Amino acid sequence: MSKLLLINGPNLNLLGTREPGIYGNTTLKDVEDQITKFANENGMELSTFQSNHEGQIIDAIHDSRMKYAGIIFNPGAFTHYSYAIRDAIASVDVPVIEVHISNVHKREEFRHTSVLAPVCEGQIVGLGITGYKLAVIAFKERLSL
Amino acid sequence: MSKLLLINGPNLNLLGTREPGIYGNTTLKDVEDQITKFANENGMELSTFQSNHEGQIIDAIHDSRMKYAGIIFNPGAFTHYSYAIRDAIASVDVPVIEVHISNVHKREEFRHTSVLAPVCEGQIVGLGITGYKLAVIAFKERLSL
Amino acid sequence: MSKLLLINGPNLNLLGTREPGIYGNTTLKDVEDQITKFANENGMELSTFQSNHEGQIIDAIHDSRMKYAGIIFNPGAFTHYSYAIRDAIASVDVPVIEVHISNVHKREEFRHTSVLAPVCEGQIVGLGITGYKLAVIAFKERLSL
Amino acid sequence: MSKLLLINGPNLNLLGTREPGIYGNTTLKDVEDQITKFANENGMELSTFQSNHEGQIIDAIHDSRMKYAGIIFNPGAFTHYSYAIRDAIASVDVPVIEVHISNVHKREEFRHTSVLAPVCEGQIVGLGITGYKLAVIAFKERLSL
Amino acid sequence: MSKLLLINGPNLNLLGTREPGIYGNTTLKDVEDQITKFANENGMELSTFQSNHEGQIIDAIHDSRMKYAGIIFNPGAFTHYSYAIRDAIASVDVPVIEVHISNVHKREEFRHTSVLAPVCEGQIVGLGITGYKLAVIAFKERLSL
Amino acid sequence: MSKLLLINGPNLNLLGTREPGIYGNTTLKDVEDQITKFANENGMELSTFQSNHEGQIIDAIHDSRMKYAGIIFNPGAFTHYSYAIRDAIASVDVPVIEVHISNVHKREEFRHTSVLAPVCEGQIVGLGITGYKLAVIAFKERLSL
Amino acid sequence: MSKLLLINGPNLNLLGTREPGIYGNTTLKDVEDQITKFANENGMELSTFQSNHEGQIIDAIHDSRMKYAGIIFNPGAFTHYSYAIRDAIASVDVPVIEVHISNVHKREEFRHTSVLAPVCEGQIVGLGITGYKLAVIAFKERLSL
Amino acid sequence: MSKLLLINGPNLNLLGTREPGIYGNTTLKDVEDQITKFANENGMELSTFQSNHEGQIIDAIHDSRMKYAGIIFNPGAFTHYSYAIRDAIASVDVPVIEVHISNVHKREEFRHTSVLAPVCEGQIVGLGITGYKLAVIAFKERLSL
Amino acid sequence: MSKLLLINGPNLNLLGTREPGIYGNTTLKDVEDQITKFANENGMELSTFQSNHEGQIIDAIHDSRMKYAGIIFNPGAFTHYSYAIRDAIASVDVPVIEVHISNVHKREEFRHTSVLAPVCEGQIVGLGITGYKLAVIAFKERLSL
Amino acid sequence: MSKLLLINGPNLNLLGTREPGIYGNTTLKDVEDQITKFANENGMELSTFQSNHEGQIIDAIHDSRMKYAGIIFNPGAFTHYSYAIRDAIASVDVPVIEVHISNVHKREEFRHTSVLAPVCEGQIVGLGITGYKLAVIAFKERLSL
Amino acid sequence: MSKLLLINGPNLNLLGTREPGIYGNTTLKDVEDQITKFANENGMELSTFQSNHEGQIIDAIHDSRMKYAGIIFNPGAFTHYSYAIRDAIASVDVPVIEVHISNVHKREEFRHTSVLAPVCEGQIVGLGITGYKLAVIAFKERLSL
Amino acid sequence: MSKLLLINGPNLNLLGTREPGIYGNTTLKDVEDQITKFANENGMELSTFQSNHEGQIIDAIHDSRMKYAGIIFNPGAFTHYSYAIRDAIASVDVPVIEVHISNVHKREEFRHTSVLAPVCEGQIVGLGITGYKLAVIAFKERLSL
Repeated sequence: MSKLLLINGPNLNLLGTREPGIYGNTTLKDVEDQITKFANENGMELSTFQSNHEGQIIDAIHDSRMKYAGIIFNPGAFTHYSYAIRDAIASVDVPVIEVHISNVHKREEFRHTSVLAPVCEGQIVGLGITGYKLAVIAFKERLSL
Repeated sequence: MSKLLLINGPNLNLLGTREPGIYGNTTLKDVEDQITKFANENGMELSTFQSNHEGQIIDAIHDSRMKYAGIIFNPGAFTHYSYAIRDAIASVDVPVIEVHISNVHKREEFRHTSVLAPVCEGQIVGLGITGYKLAVIAFKERLSL
Repeated sequence: MSKLLLINGPNLNLLGTREPGIYGNTTLKDVEDQITKFANENGMELSTFQSNHEGQIIDAIHDSRMKYAGIIFNPGAFTHYSYAIRDAIASVDVPVIEVHISNVHKREEFRHTSVLAPVCEGQIVGLGITGYKLAVIAFKERLSL
Repeated sequence: MSKLLLINGPNLNLLGTREPGIYGNTTLKDVEDQITKFANENGMELSTFQSNHEGQIIDAIHDSRMKYAGIIFNPGAFTHYSYAIRDAIASVDVPVIEVHISNVHKREEFRHTSVLAPVCEGQIVGLGITGYKLAVIAFKERLSL
Repeated sequence: MSKLLLINGPNLNLLGTREPGIYGNTTLKDVEDQITKFANENGMELSTFQSNHEGQIIDAIHDSRMKYAGIIFNPGAFTHYSYAIRDAIASVDVPVIEVHISNVHKREEFRHTSVLAPVCEGQIVGLGITGYKLAVIAFKERLSL
Repeated sequence: MSKLLLINGPNLNLLGTREPGIYGNTTLKDVEDQITKFANENGMELSTFQSNHEGQIIDAIHDSRMKYAGIIFNPGAFTHYSYAIRDAIASVDVPVIEVHISNVHKREEFRHTSVLAPVCEGQIVGLGITGYKLAVIAFKERLSL
Repeated sequence: MSKLLLINGPNLNLLGTREPGIYGNTTLKDVEDQITKFANENGMELSTFQSNHEGQIIDAIHDSRMKYAGIIFNPGAFTHYSYAIRDAIASVDVPVIEVHISNVHKREEFRHTSVLAPVCEGQIVGLGITGYKLAVIAFKERLSL
Repeated sequence: MSKLLLINGPNLNLLGTREPGIYGNTTLKDVEDQITKFANENGMELSTFQSNHEGQIIDAIHDSRMKYAGIIFNPGAFTHYSYAIRDAIASVDVPVIEVHISNVHKREEFRHTSVLAPVCEGQIVGLGITGYKLAVIAFKERLSL
Repeated sequence: MSKLLLINGPNLNLLGTREPGIYGNTTLKDVEDQITKFANENGMELSTFQSNHEGQIIDAIHDSRMKYAGIIFNPGAFTHYSYAIRDAIASVDVPVIEVHISNVHKREEFRHTSVLAPVCEGQIVGLGITGYKLAVIAFKERLSL
Repeated sequence: MSKLLLINGPNLNLLGTREPGIYGNTTLKDVEDQITKFANENGMELSTFQSNHEGQIIDAIHDSRMKYAGIIFNPGAFTHYSYAIRDAIASVDVPVIEVHISNVHKREEFRHTSVLAPVCEGQIVGLGITGYKLAVIAFKERLSL
Repeated sequence: MSKLLLINGPNLNLLGTREPGIYGNTTLKDVEDQITKFANENGMELSTFQSNHEGQIIDAIHDSRMKYAGIIFNPGAFTHYSYAIRDAIASVDVPVIEVHISNVHKREEFRHTSVLAPVCEGQIVGLGITGYKLAVIAFKERLSL
Repeated sequence: MSKLLLINGPNLNLLGTREPGIYGNTTLKDVEDQITKFANENGMELSTFQSNHEGQIIDAIHDSRMKYAGIIFNPGAFTHYSYAIRDAIASVDVPVIEVHISNVHKREEFRHTSVLAPVCEGQIVGLGITGYKLAVIAFKERLSL
């Protein structure tokens, strides 16, 4: 059975408690359970990881080699400036799909630029929690499961 | 049964014949058939439309009112400068999901900016033909089918 | 009797149905009738034309030569990027007054720039439907009617 | 009977003597008389004020509260940098229409930007002395006289 | 007893009547009384001055030499473009603390830049009327009263 | 016998009637006849096409596949913003030479940038009607006729 | 008794040993003691925290919920690029006052921009150690202690 | 006998007391006396004027018509933003020579741009008080005295 | 018989040995012989000159007066910054056609700007050695040979 | 015996496994051994440290005071945005030499800017593993060993 | 007797023959004779030098050491980009006054920037041939002759 | 025995006499002798060359082909704009190491950009005369001597 890794970046631990108008009321725990279940239903395993620390996320990406068929990654605000995470993604050969819950293009100017996008497989933006599920399916198609 | 509209913009009629290294060998006809079938399997109908003419796309978006539950839209190069299409999307209350087959962020500088993104529901970028399918599912979730 | 041409650009066919908070409830038909009547009262005839197609608007501007004493033009979103329409205006010797219903300077950044303004006689911005009437009077003064 | 205030900014006291190729031969006195007469004919009173001093214009805008139904304002070069006048306009609830005699978009680069436009009702640009008359009519329509 | 000078710039005479959502209901007179009283309680005298005229503010800064131990200055919109006031501050050796009632960084882009900041002692921003009091205390500490 | 396609973009239908100081008095019909004759003398056939509609030009470029050995293209104002035409040129393997009658680098700023240049074989600029003939010869050399 | 949290960011642990010309000789320990005492005198408790790790600061801001009435925050160089900390501040409903010991507007260009300022209550800049005290008083006023 | 007008702008009244390292110890009165004497020796009269008020300087430029053969103008910080003074200079046909005592190109970035330079006869920069004398001689040559 | 001058700028002496993928194997000597012969066949003489020294090229342009009917000029890298050569071209009344062998718009960003283009008759770009021949013909047309 | 500290930043732990075309096959362990040996041969000791965590690197730089004669630092992607590390380097008086294995100026745009360079002693760029050895020698010269 | 050096840069050898509308009919020889005579009358000697070669101008500046009390320098187009000449001026302790015959601020954008200005004593701009004389007088004052 | 070429660019002939605070007292002759000796000790020969003429440096780079194993190049101010030298370096297959004596990143803004860096092997910056020695060693490693 293929394994995926779901990484959520800084401040996403507050999901469900923070700006519900933008992010809804579902907590991170809810989301992780829901996506894990969804992955299982689609024939894949899912591990989850959240951190507010850039270095820990880099370590997690390094450690994904040999273990995961793909990473579903919501980088939070690191999207906009972490060239170190960009290099980490480029350093491993595990494909990464960047997911944003809200439509970042409707928000502040600085959220319109992703320094990670050029080294990811693709992006899914603005489709809420559903975005994570779509990434699961994208990997499923890719793996021809 | 809910209906979706799939709009493909300029030059996508050449799909399968143009730059196969980037876009693959599937023709537009193949793609439209495949996504129509996929929509049906997911309980929705799908109409398709392609044009190289900005004005015709604006007309199509206007005509979608009252008829469609959502639009799946690959705007091609209009993505980067058609403020008229942007206004068309903002003028109707049919939700639009922007899809790009290739990862535009890995290509020329001018492809990194979308003037349409701020008025769409979300974007799905760089996941190939699969991107269209993911948009179908996103609408399905939205409609709670 | 002098003749004027009223051109409305992309998405203005939806007037009265689109974003009423910004544009009010009057439909394009209402506006055209109202301005035609107003022109007549001021001793001028008025023809009207609306299109979502840049090329059709260029053709209409070309065809206005020898026929009209002036053009009242709400270019919609073409204001911000259609250098082809700019060249069309510069190519004919029919004077053009650019009209915007809403105050574009209160809206998104991209609406603050008009590539057409340098080749028009003048601009009337933000004064609602009244703006079209003011353009009629401006032409009346110019023609010393 | 409703009252309007006509404010002319720096260097407009030289109207008729300065750069006649751009501004014509009519003096400021002529203009003020002509527009006062025009306002009266349209059922409104008009007071006039001219100053080369930014501070005096701010004071005049403050003093207009409770006294005037609208301000017709040609801010001259203050258009391009006086954020203090911008704040003055935003501070009072008297609507302001910005008027420029010449088409500023045909002139030097720095004249293309108005820091006042976002807080005015609208702009009338490039239609000569007629522009002031159009502003009178715009206020008349607004007041439903 | 040490003396301070409180200068309020353009449009601050309307305090309490202008945009109460941002600035509250206290009038300038109230503020001046309140801060004078607060200064007295902290062992200092306070003179107050308000003007909408850049030149008068420059004169006031020049005249402060030898008379005041410090200036508390809310420059209003002059903050963003008055290099002449900047030079005035640099010309005298009376220390100046720049105060803004609202958090200018939450407002329009042009309010994010202060051409005066590099020649002031410091800035207090976004803390309401309290900001003036904090400046009084900062001078008190500086004077070791 | 090899075949070339001559495409003229927006407003070039007015050639000979528009801004003769810049473009001369020769009409588009004259030019097309002259270049067709010139191509014949050099052993090639020439078809001609003019449109003010971006979409029609894209269609024409698509249709040129298998039919023409090269395209001589004066894109008019589309030069400066039509990324859709750029993609059309990149999509077909017919070589394109971009021709401008006037020296665009001596005119307005916006005319200095060509979004098409990077996907064309080359450019011929500022040499009048002669430029079209030079393009014919360039294709002749290329085809070793 | 109300509680405040004082957070000092990267390199501020070296206070008193680093660039004394700019920051003086007082160590961080001295500052923390002094501000704690000052808070107590003003009827509030103060906890202190210092870290060179962006992630730890984000965690500290998250943990402040329900515990503190306000945060006094000197973000050091994170001021200029940590959008992750910005999101952390926006995620909690504890008000934050940004404090800088030196007048950053007198120093290098990159120190003139704060990505945190738009989500803080306000800023106190360039007033030395006194700045921390002023923040204490600002919270005291806010809490009407 | 020909007459010149010497205008000194904001903060130059402090000459001799302000930043002597840059401007020396000579007071404005000394300078005015010295240049008046120098003008007399060269067969010209000189009037002098200083103001910190932009509006007063505009008035003075307007009033110079018919009275003066030339203006020697040190605009101080107005150099960098007063488009209103620029228009005043362009409105009168009295030639103006812009003088700066210090070499503004060696100082802060904002001092490198003059919005007045394009409408002046010329500039003399960085040559101290001597610069005013050089302007006198330049007018003498011009008048062929 | 009319005479032309062919100037090749810096590094073009290495033609045929440098980056053959871009420039082919023909040496400068070959090119000069080929174009000389071509000019003769078209009824014109051709002199040739190459230099790596900006000053020598300026001298050669100066010396062309009275001697040549036109200059064919490949300025190499001087294209992008030599304002001195620009002034040299503007100083003489010999028309200049700028030729680039490769399509500079497909190469590095800095090659997209020509500081010479505004003072040349026209440009021929990206058509290889043929470009020199096209320039010969353009001059022939101009001279009506 | 003098001691040096070798710090390698984010992702350099993958050296030898990551993008061998750019970085070669030598692992970080190999490099550290090789440089340690080289330092010893040149009469110096070398400690090594690697981290993907910005905060840990700041701590390491702080801790180097009093212990090391110099730091050889390959900051990886932190080079381009970590103003916090910049402040750390500026805070200690241990000299730092910045080393990059690849020629960053030949790679993506964002790699051309180093926010650390202004506070380092110097940079050695693009010379592979040899760069570390050169830094050892530079310190040796500096220490006159 | 003190000695000055007059250096004229590229294309100034054509003075009197080039663009007489801007520069007049006086040749460089005339100018040099006139300024030499003027210097003698003011008690100074003058040597003259002109070159189109950047390197020769650098040499001349180097050679001026110990020989001249000052350099009057019209750098022509080198003004805008020759950082090498800038370094040459900074390398010698002979003061340099930059002179431009025309008002460069009224001409093309690129002429508004001088890379030399920050290392010169001052500038005299737009005052024609008189500018050279003013520079002679400025040196006379400086030398207290 | 392998041979290296040391090229020093404009103004470096003044080494030891120019700004000793930055560059020290060693003359260019001293440096050349020192580096020649150092190269010999490391088993290589070294030729030296200095010029203020861009053209001569281009020639020297061209002439290095077949003769030298590498070039150590301090381009002086040409670093920042000489695209001609850039092309020269790209034209030959002799590897070049760019050396700057001072830390250019600590100096003026324009020194932060090198137009040569992308075509060099690497850079050594800010390490004084030692930098030249490090380049010798880098070539030694490369040649596996």
